[in-house]
Amino acid sequence: SKVAIVGAGAVGSTLAYACLLRGAAREVVLFDRNRDKVEAQAMDIAHGIQFTPMGSVRGSDDVAICAGADVVVITAGARQKPGQSRLDLAGATIDIMRTLVPQLVEVAPHAVYVMVANPVDVVTYAGLKISGLPQHQFFGSGTVLDTSRLRYLVARACGVAVQSVHAYMAGEHGDSELPLWSSAMIGAVPLLQWGPTRDGRMLDEEMRAAIATEVVQSAYKIIAGKGATNYAVGLAVVRIIEAVMRNEHRVLSVSSLLEDYLEISDVCMSVPTVVGHDGVGRRLVPVVTERERHGLVQSAEAIRAVARQFGF
Amino acid sequence: SKVAIVGAGAVGSTLAYACLLRGAAREVVLFDRNRDKVEAQAMDIAHGIQFTPMGSVRGSDDVAICAGADVVVITAGARQKPGQSRLDLAGATIDIMRTLVPQLVEVAPHAVYVMVANPVDVVTYAGLKISGLPQHQFFGSGTVLDTSRLRYLVARACGVAVQSVHAYMAGEHGDSELPLWSSAMIGAVPLLQWGPTRDGRMLDEEMRAAIATEVVQSAYKIIAGKGATNYAVGLAVVRIIEAVMRNEHRVLSVSSLLEDYLEISDVCMSVPTVVGHDGVGRRLVPVVTERERHGLVQSAEAIRAVARQFGF
Amino acid sequence: SKVAIVGAGAVGSTLAYACLLRGAAREVVLFDRNRDKVEAQAMDIAHGIQFTPMGSVRGSDDVAICAGADVVVITAGARQKPGQSRLDLAGATIDIMRTLVPQLVEVAPHAVYVMVANPVDVVTYAGLKISGLPQHQFFGSGTVLDTSRLRYLVARACGVAVQSVHAYMAGEHGDSELPLWSSAMIGAVPLLQWGPTRDGRMLDEEMRAAIATEVVQSAYKIIAGKGATNYAVGLAVVRIIEAVMRNEHRVLSVSSLLEDYLEISDVCMSVPTVVGHDGVGRRLVPVVTERERHGLVQSAEAIRAVARQFGF
Amino acid sequence: SKVAIVGAGAVGSTLAYACLLRGAAREVVLFDRNRDKVEAQAMDIAHGIQFTPMGSVRGSDDVAICAGADVVVITAGARQKPGQSRLDLAGATIDIMRTLVPQLVEVAPHAVYVMVANPVDVVTYAGLKISGLPQHQFFGSGTVLDTSRLRYLVARACGVAVQSVHAYMAGEHGDSELPLWSSAMIGAVPLLQWGPTRDGRMLDEEMRAAIATEVVQSAYKIIAGKGATNYAVGLAVVRIIEAVMRNEHRVLSVSSLLEDYLEISDVCMSVPTVVGHDGVGRRLVPVVTERERHGLVQSAEAIRAVARQFGF
Ligand SMILES: NC(=O)c1ccc[n+]([C@@H]2O[C@H](COP(=O)([O-])OP(=O)(O)OC[C@H]3O[C@@H](n4cnc5c(N)ncnc54)[C@H](O)[C@@H]3O)[C@@H](O)[C@H]2O)c1
Ligand SMILES: NC(=O)c1ccc[n+]([C@@H]2O[C@H](COP(=O)([O-])OP(=O)(O)OC[C@H]3O[C@@H](n4cnc5c(N)ncnc54)[C@H](O)[C@@H]3O)[C@@H](O)[C@H]2O)c1
Ligand SMILES: NC(=O)c1ccc[n+]([C@@H]2O[C@H](COP(=O)([O-])OP(=O)(O)OC[C@H]3O[C@@H](n4cnc5c(N)ncnc54)[C@H](O)[C@@H]3O)[C@@H](O)[C@H]2O)c1
Ligand SMILES: NC(=O)c1ccc[n+]([C@@H]2O[C@H](COP(=O)([O-])OP(=O)(O)OC[C@H]3O[C@@H](n4cnc5c(N)ncnc54)[C@H](O)[C@@H]3O)[C@@H](O)[C@H]2O)c1
Repeated sequence: SKVAIVGAGAVGSTLAYACLLRGAAREVVLFDRNRDKVEAQAMDIAHGIQFTPMGSVRGSDDVAICAGADVVVITAGARQKPGQSRLDLAGATIDIMRTLVPQLVEVAPHAVYVMVANPVDVVTYAGLKISGLPQHQFFGSGTVLDTSRLRYLVARACGVAVQSVHAYMAGEHGDSELPLWSSAMIGAVPLLQWGPTRDGRMLDEEMRAAIATEVVQSAYKIIAGKGATNYAVGLAVVRIIEAVMRNEHRVLSVSSLLEDYLEISDVCMSVPTVVGHDGVGRRLVPVVTERERHGLVQSAEAIRAVARQFGF
Repeated sequence: SKVAIVGAGAVGSTLAYACLLRGAAREVVLFDRNRDKVEAQAMDIAHGIQFTPMGSVRGSDDVAICAGADVVVITAGARQKPGQSRLDLAGATIDIMRTLVPQLVEVAPHAVYVMVANPVDVVTYAGLKISGLPQHQFFGSGTVLDTSRLRYLVARACGVAVQSVHAYMAGEHGDSELPLWSSAMIGAVPLLQWGPTRDGRMLDEEMRAAIATEVVQSAYKIIAGKGATNYAVGLAVVRIIEAVMRNEHRVLSVSSLLEDYLEISDVCMSVPTVVGHDGVGRRLVPVVTERERHGLVQSAEAIRAVARQFGF
Repeated sequence: SKVAIVGAGAVGSTLAYACLLRGAAREVVLFDRNRDKVEAQAMDIAHGIQFTPMGSVRGSDDVAICAGADVVVITAGARQKPGQSRLDLAGATIDIMRTLVPQLVEVAPHAVYVMVANPVDVVTYAGLKISGLPQHQFFGSGTVLDTSRLRYLVARACGVAVQSVHAYMAGEHGDSELPLWSSAMIGAVPLLQWGPTRDGRMLDEEMRAAIATEVVQSAYKIIAGKGATNYAVGLAVVRIIEAVMRNEHRVLSVSSLLEDYLEISDVCMSVPTVVGHDGVGRRLVPVVTERERHGLVQSAEAIRAVARQFGF
Repeated sequence: SKVAIVGAGAVGSTLAYACLLRGAAREVVLFDRNRDKVEAQAMDIAHGIQFTPMGSVRGSDDVAICAGADVVVITAGARQKPGQSRLDLAGATIDIMRTLVPQLVEVAPHAVYVMVANPVDVVTYAGLKISGLPQHQFFGSGTVLDTSRLRYLVARACGVAVQSVHAYMAGEHGDSELPLWSSAMIGAVPLLQWGPTRDGRMLDEEMRAAIATEVVQSAYKIIAGKGATNYAVGLAVVRIIEAVMRNEHRVLSVSSLLEDYLEISDVCMSVPTVVGHDGVGRRLVPVVTERERHGLVQSAEAIRAVARQFGF
């Protein structure tokens, strides 16, 4: 089993590290155009192999290192700068994909592709079209990270394990995303009926709005404090890789091509989706309020507007 | 961190093994009145330590080995014989508890107690009364195992990961238990609205009834085939131990004393419950149909009837 | 990745359980001629999947279930009875192999075969000949278990982690086996120069002899106490499976065909051996004293004598 | 169980991440004087909790967050710049310790202290003296990382699993360090007698010298390529933390105060050492050649010379 990670920056190298620690694949390769950097990252990670389930890590500036990969994760792209919105990054990253994606598809035609570079939804759509691959084989990490932030905040507020919070962020991985509150559960209880939180206040609309805002703002805050986000995204993407590698059929809010989904079509966006060996499968349609449905439609439009701007 | 397991039979020794493999505690001790057996079990497990996160396993027929445990799991009891109902076992096992529980509480007064011996609900109630401990500190493994069977069957039918199925068995760990279908979810979709399963049939009332029946019948079938159930129960109880040891506040369907829960009182029975360092916390009240509520009340009555028969 | 386990008794089913807990393979299948039993074992294990890295477990009395396996582990054989020597079991188990091995090789011709049934060295030799496979593809679990017992006892005596003890049991998995003391190390110190143990006594020849005896006697003691050994052997065999599946090239004391090894030839016996994807590779020749060399030769003769008795 | 990490830069935050992924402690706290950065690191890591064994991560610029820690790891210090030798960093980092260590000892007097800041041997010695703690309670990560690099390179050359290579780097974590070749083993074979490597060349003195040089040069190379080393060191330090937390008594080449060790005294330096709950225990004395002994003595002198320069 082989995972190829394209881009050995903060996100790509942390992801390689998390793969190793989890034993997600036997072989991890890093590809980056910066040779000294990619070799240094691979060497630094490889030196830790003794402490992990056996595996191998190599790095190169030659795309051939990705040959025969089962999963290809693309993190090559401009890093989000403090204050910059995710959509601003679109043009530069799409340009990278025009060259990169055909090279990758040539050496790894059977891989499942996971886009991470931002703005992930737009770039996934562009990458999918450039690749010419079937839609199930090419998708983005979407709001898997945002979902994990949402669950973390709800869990902390309510005093339950994060694993007992079943809730999803959907829509754009960006400002227009939204939590699907009306289908969210804590254990067997609808989140909307949870009642008092740990500090005695109610989990009411005000508190939920504050949580949703914090999820959306998280990336900005972290980037302001440390210049990049890399740790949680590394784990989120390992989760996706494991779902593919082990053919788990797990429900994850990845960003994939939607057609006739709550009347949304021809856009890549995150909704709860079954992920397995072939990539993305059934997109689940949760019970939504009119307001949630409207939020999803607007999010789709926001993404589509940017994509169209770049000719996709 | 120390876990004491009382009873080194099929269940107790498999549980010790699973603890070791998971690194659930630094120290696992087995206590059983059969000295040769308990020493043999501990030795057989200890010989495998090289292959696991470090730890230690010891066995003894002296209850003092349990001293200072953080968690005490009680599996001592008559094994369910082919065809025998769980309630038939009650008398014998309650008698064991009259002697055993006070001895354990003396050496491990601050431990959280997890009863596994069957019929687990009745024996938990009796054990709690005998122990004199606060209710949160003494509970039973209840339907955690049955819940995992339910999720396994639903996952298999629907073609999704078992970790994406959020559903609970509640009530008696035994014939009167029931799935809480109306609060069950697959990803973000209510299970009742899931639609077609993997083989094209609908997940309709008939199929759900078949799944529920299979859950209830599982133990009988496995006991008929191999004489005992031990593997899944070992993992289910490790899950409970981890929730306590790591103070997870995870929602698990353990059997604990209910008071004013959907009008049910003074009985130990399983409902989705928050489990952490202090043992059981908030019992969650899911949305239930009238039929489900009625099923829970009847299950409570069945348990209470047996308990009362033995003076509890 | 698929592991097939033949024989769903104490050893086979515990091994399947350990595979699941370790995530050693995506798919584990159990094959046994006793249909009710094998189905019950598989069901009991499968019910615990929720608590483990995703995977699947199935059981059948049809050998076709083993088709396409990457590794086949054979535990079908008579269980060692209290008092019975391992060599006494030879005839019956070899007879089983005459039928079983050709069936297995037919459905899983590319698998690596790991023999566990006792007397494992003799049965491995017979199985290898019956199979017609190249020698690297068919070997026995040998003294991997005994080595782990040795390390456990040394670690306990010296007060160091078992992972810091580098020592091997070699020869027959049985009464004539011996520890390779002169190449044994604790950390960077030769075991023969370790000096005082935890209780102040020296790790001298007397103490080493006592440890060696305890290793040899372990199985008898455990079988006397609980009727079978299954836990440590389950972990030892998982370790072998992982070495093959992940192509680890790990040094393990498995039992394989020796040729010109310290003048020993044409016998299957355990020595430190590199194990990887293709099965067994280089057999390592440690520094041995004349006494150790002689012990190995005698052990080889003991095994060969039994094998020849059964026409191998 | 609580681990406090001082310094939330590349090393400290990666270490926190590795702790979480390994479940090495229930609670990880980060302390750094840069508030925005430490909060951002903690938040980024905490968002990934969903995907790991439960735990909590918090960050603060108030040293009180370290109160009651079981282990305190100190990574605060100047980062090694491209080309800069580790010894050049000494002065600045020792100055930091004069203020920092007393504050830490006040809030966490019973913790085991692990120094990581470079030049680690000198800074460990200074920190130990400043702390006033018993010597077993305060040591440095030393050559645990370098040892893992050595094993990685030997394993790759010889075609065996890194876990089957038993060899240690000793002396200074820096230019004067050396491999203890004469006690090194691969499986049960002395490394000096291994013979042909994977590419057919012999593991002779020339190749061993090349490997030793590569170990010493690794950090420079990685820093040149990516500006810091953080991944392998994160795993190496987690290994140390686990040895302490689980009281493993594992043999690790940490840097601790030596007295009468091969005639070396009054210096902190790495040799194979038993590490457990109380910190460092027995320092193992391997068989060394005269050349190796001399190398160790010289390394000790190099470290001592720097320490004395700063009044320690
Ligand atoms: N989807 C998410 O949840 C999520 C989260 C965090 C970051 N991101 C995104 O991930 C991307 C990477 O972030 P980062 O912090 O690692 O950035 P980074 O700048 O640290 O790393 C990017 C790497 O890509 C390499 N690269 C650029 N163009 C390349 C090309 N054509 N071929 C090969 N390599 C090339 C660069 O050399 C660099 O090493 C960004 O787009 C960022 O916005 C996404
Ligand atoms: N709650 C569940 O989900 C669940 C699942 C499976 C089994 N069980 C129950 O667990 C119990 C154990 O099952 P098993 O298969 O391990 O039975 P077992 O007969 O194999 O083991 C029971 C052990 O308890 C010991 N024991 C009995 N009385 C004792 C005493 N007073 N003090 C010390 N030790 C004593 C016996 O010596 C024996 O070793 C049974 O009651 C069974 O019904 C519960
Ligand atoms: N090598 C070791 O380190 C080691 C350690 C422990 C046990 N063992 C050996 O492992 C073997 C199994 O031990 P156990 O305790 O599991 O025994 P067991 O009796 O519990 O199980 C053996 C299983 O094999 C099945 N079986 C027998 N013949 C078969 C056939 N022809 N086809 C399919 N299935 C068949 C039986 O139905 C039974 O379920 C024994 O030979 C034992 O001595 C080896
Ligand atoms: N021993 C090893 O094996 C090894 C390996 C790699 C790095 N290192 C060393 O680890 C240290 C850290 O490296 P890095 O790459 O993380 O550096 P870094 O510059 O990224 O981080 C250091 C952090 O320490 C903080 N800090 C400095 N002084 C402080 C104080 N008085 N109180 C609180 N926080 C303070 C800084 O704000 C910064 O966030 C360096 O000394 C480096 O040489 C050691």
